[in-house]
Amino acid sequence: MSTTAAEQAAMRRALELAATPGVPLGPNPRVGCVLLADDGSTVAEGFHRGAGTPHAEADALATAGDRARGTTAVVTLEPCNHTGRTAPCAQALVAAGVRRVVFAQSDPNPAAAGGADTLRAAGIEVEAGVLVDDARTLNRVWTFAVEHGRPFVTWKFATTLDGRSAAADGTSRWVSSLAARRDTHRLRALCDVMLVGTNTVAVDDPLLTVRDDHDQPLATQPLRVVMGERDLDPGRRIFNADAESLHLRTRDPKEALTQLYARDRQHVFLEGGPTLAAAFVQAGLVDEIVVYVAPMILGAGRSAVADLGITTIADALRPRITDITVLAGDPDGNVRFTLAPGED
Amino acid sequence: MSTTAAEQAAMRRALELAATPGVPLGPNPRVGCVLLADDGSTVAEGFHRGAGTPHAEADALATAGDRARGTTAVVTLEPCNHTGRTAPCAQALVAAGVRRVVFAQSDPNPAAAGGADTLRAAGIEVEAGVLVDDARTLNRVWTFAVEHGRPFVTWKFATTLDGRSAAADGTSRWVSSLAARRDTHRLRALCDVMLVGTNTVAVDDPLLTVRDDHDQPLATQPLRVVMGERDLDPGRRIFNADAESLHLRTRDPKEALTQLYARDRQHVFLEGGPTLAAAFVQAGLVDEIVVYVAPMILGAGRSAVADLGITTIADALRPRITDITVLAGDPDGNVRFTLAPGED
Ligand SMILES: NC(=O)c1ccc[n+]([C@@H]2O[C@H](COP(=O)([O-])OP(=O)(O)OC[C@H]3O[C@@H](n4cnc5c(N)ncnc54)[C@H](OP(=O)(O)O)[C@@H]3O)[C@@H](O)[C@H]2O)c1
Ligand SMILES: NC(=O)c1ccc[n+]([C@@H]2O[C@H](COP(=O)([O-])OP(=O)(O)OC[C@H]3O[C@@H](n4cnc5c(N)ncnc54)[C@H](OP(=O)(O)O)[C@@H]3O)[C@@H](O)[C@H]2O)c1
Repeated sequence: MSTTAAEQAAMRRALELAATPGVPLGPNPRVGCVLLADDGSTVAEGFHRGAGTPHAEADALATAGDRARGTTAVVTLEPCNHTGRTAPCAQALVAAGVRRVVFAQSDPNPAAAGGADTLRAAGIEVEAGVLVDDARTLNRVWTFAVEHGRPFVTWKFATTLDGRSAAADGTSRWVSSLAARRDTHRLRALCDVMLVGTNTVAVDDPLLTVRDDHDQPLATQPLRVVMGERDLDPGRRIFNADAESLHLRTRDPKEALTQLYARDRQHVFLEGGPTLAAAFVQAGLVDEIVVYVAPMILGAGRSAVADLGITTIADALRPRITDITVLAGDPDGNVRFTLAPGED
Repeated sequence: MSTTAAEQAAMRRALELAATPGVPLGPNPRVGCVLLADDGSTVAEGFHRGAGTPHAEADALATAGDRARGTTAVVTLEPCNHTGRTAPCAQALVAAGVRRVVFAQSDPNPAAAGGADTLRAAGIEVEAGVLVDDARTLNRVWTFAVEHGRPFVTWKFATTLDGRSAAADGTSRWVSSLAARRDTHRLRALCDVMLVGTNTVAVDDPLLTVRDDHDQPLATQPLRVVMGERDLDPGRRIFNADAESLHLRTRDPKEALTQLYARDRQHVFLEGGPTLAAAFVQAGLVDEIVVYVAPMILGAGRSAVADLGITTIADALRPRITDITVLAGDPDGNVRFTLAPGED
């Protein structure tokens, strides 16, 4: 069995719907759905707007009403099989009289999987895996988190061309250009946790909120997390009312990620300091590295990366470059490297 | 007065001739010349093939013979006025009966300048500055050297993303990928001096020759220079018969460059070590920086750049990026930054 051109086109449209900008996602995947009539015309469209709102299939079925009967549902994720805040989509599709279901990505969540089987058992034709790579890319962090049972970790650091994050006297304003700092806020906004070590809070007292190009805080903020065993002054800015915050009194990166996943968090943005970042690297718990390289040379000063316990060249971290971008409109020419950890 | 379309086109052709690949240059500039008839057609072409061979104008006049009379000479550099190994071109053009001379770059060499005046005094029309930027770019190093009375200095270093040139145990094979090492040889071949400090010779015993992609030495080699006051074992590889070499017993970068310029050298490739490079940076005698960044992270080990006496961020070197290239076909994804020192 295979798919028609109309179904392929509908899947591309469903991916587009899923990626609707500004959808507040919370911990849920982006999902889009298109209902097709026999002649290939569109009967209804739907997409998921985030936790607590209808799933994409339910959204499309609600729009279609009685016209859903006999249609083909084209959906970017395997229809769910469990009763969460909404009824299982697999059953809703059966009840609506849908004739055929074409989906992209199988549900990686064991608690939600099984939708395809439920549909087939009800006599519905099912086609899986259409444009599956695009669908996985769309929800790359969610997919990773569900498959690994922990949040995806992005480690970001900024460095001069010679590996320094500050000069010998401790001054570091600004190693990163304005464009790099803005770009960092853009990446922060894609995450749901900002993570730093206790020493960064003690020394720098950062706010750790996500701000726009006018330095105004965004409406939705990641959880601000500081990790480490020491007590912290509750007057530190991380604990203010601008966003939620949490002090995880552990030094175990795995334990910290487990606790964050239990709170439905899927994407940790690890900004430092070097000591905490090194602990995550050594625990093998860094999934992406973003490095802002400033075309600046200091010759001395604080190292951007702390000791990782690597003593010989054969053991160097050798991440794979997935992207290099010269930041647009940046008079200081900062360059962003995005890297995926290499296999060992 | 201005130039015709035919003269503009002839200048572009003259620039092409000047840039003929494989011309052994020695210390001389690349120069091209086109002789145009009144109707804009080409009477003869010429270019300079390097020290000891005819200048571009002489080359074109020889080809034209009697047909040179009444032509317009379009030449990329102001015709020379001094008697070197060849007769002055300005006088040769007068003698050949050329009617008009159009040139691009004025001769920056005080000993050779004055050609335009000689031509005008002989009643020849002269037009200067046509495509002058292209002409200066073509001979950027020669122009710099003549204008500054010293060689142009390119400082090259290789680094991991965190500013290391070797791991903690001293191992460094290979921080740079094969493609980066080959690219380094390509850049070495554009220079006429390879420069290192005595300690690099003592510790690494490098050969410092330029080799092709099959690791075979090129026919023309830069002068290999080691700089510093200590005595060196004459059995070191830098002193072998593969190429010329020289031990400059000084620690003064300015003095070293003066001595090299006196030997007609115009382009120094400074590969290290860090101590010698730092001395050139601190003396303000680095004119271009080439950095190979390997997507590798060590967290410890030897710093790629030595102490430059910079203690605070405001004093950081802030070179301007002129090029960023991801080296083609490089599985390890090395990136080459080319930088011009910023103004202070
Ligand atoms: N340029 C930048 O982007 C940037 C970003 C952030 C920070 N920084 C700089 O980095 C400096 C702070 O960095 P830092 O490295 O000193 O401190 P850090 O990494 O922020 O915090 C280190 C502390 O975290 C706690 N910790 C939690 N888990 C740990 C583990 N697995 N291993 C070790 N420690 C763990 C420990 O404190 P407990 O005793 O509390 O457990 C440790 O002392 C500041 O000067 C700041 O300016 C720069
Ligand atoms: N990765 C690379 O591309 C690369 C390239 C080159 C070297 N290296 C490494 O770098 C290391 C050697 O570097 P290095 O920094 O120790 O030595 P270096 O820079 O090669 O030589 C330093 C020596 O140069 C002499 N010198 C000349 N002019 C000087 C000046 N103005 N200021 C200071 N010294 C001056 C001094 O010796 P005198 O007492 O003789 O005057 C000084 O000790 C080796 O381990 C080598 O492996 C790496």
